[in-house]
Amino acid sequence: GSYGAPAVANDPMWGYFTAIAGQDGEVDADELQRCLTQGGFTGSYSPFNLETCRVMIAMLDRDSTGKMGFNEFKDLFTALNGWKQNFVMFDRDRSGTVEPQEMGQAMYAMGFRVSPQALNVIIKRYSKGGRIYFDDYVTCCVKLRAHTDNFKRRDTMQQGAVSFQYDDFILCTMAI
Amino acid sequence: GSYGAPAVANDPMWGYFTAIAGQDGEVDADELQRCLTQGGFTGSYSPFNLETCRVMIAMLDRDSTGKMGFNEFKDLFTALNGWKQNFVMFDRDRSGTVEPQEMGQAMYAMGFRVSPQALNVIIKRYSKGGRIYFDDYVTCCVKLRAHTDNFKRRDTMQQGAVSFQYDDFILCTMAI
Repeated sequence: GSYGAPAVANDPMWGYFTAIAGQDGEVDADELQRCLTQGGFTGSYSPFNLETCRVMIAMLDRDSTGKMGFNEFKDLFTALNGWKQNFVMFDRDRSGTVEPQEMGQAMYAMGFRVSPQALNVIIKRYSKGGRIYFDDYVTCCVKLRAHTDNFKRRDTMQQGAVSFQYDDFILCTMAI
Repeated sequence: GSYGAPAVANDPMWGYFTAIAGQDGEVDADELQRCLTQGGFTGSYSPFNLETCRVMIAMLDRDSTGKMGFNEFKDLFTALNGWKQNFVMFDRDRSGTVEPQEMGQAMYAMGFRVSPQALNVIIKRYSKGGRIYFDDYVTCCVKLRAHTDNFKRRDTMQQGAVSFQYDDFILCTMAI
């Protein structure tokens, strides 16, 4: 009987999660990479780089274990699905890439508000041969979200400015 | 005759640089990866990930072109040689990895001063299977240097604290 079984047992993703997580009950970057590749998430796009998967985990890893529990796993999938839909929408010619001049619109559609100067830096940093591939697009979204969360969490008065001590700045930036 | 030839022509690294840089006279991440692998820099260690090479260029790329000129190229080699020497010194058992408990000492030896809390985050983020590989070690050093430089450049009064506007924070963090 299911009497006393945790609520998550009814969640369709629970079985999937436990299969990936293995014995320790948490998902690390290797397991996440395998799951996103074999599970078909990247589809016709190139599989995610291991580094991309590490950034995904870092985005949600508040206790700095380098691993993800079930709730973080679900949060990540929600975010990834949104970013994928967004990418597909901007990849009009199905080349598997988004063009630099569309990156501003794409970021705006995802809810990020960045200056033209920051946008220029982002385009240079996350493009290859002048185009933005899915893997790099996701890395960019993951990092933008993580850094924005880190900033907002400290901007308690919502003034759009935060005073960082050196060590806290290093902690924030090195974690992602 | 060499009359009027630029001073760099006498620099032993100039020929090497021009061979790698190709027609545009600048080195991008692909060219850098090829040069560090084929030039034997990584030696018996695994070749650098393309992402690591992009971070190396980002560290020195003040004009956000995604490429490196000759002076940046030389700066990078100086830094890389220092980090490699440091890594080899801490990789006492020649396993190609440094152990987490030695990471604090290694960072200290490289001139970085981070709190135990930041060190913990760094170790989790840049290790695989509980060990720190050369590629990740270098990524860690590159990022620590780049973020420290960004911070110091803004901390003009040397107070150990900087007030960041959101957009400047995003610009700094997304560039690396």
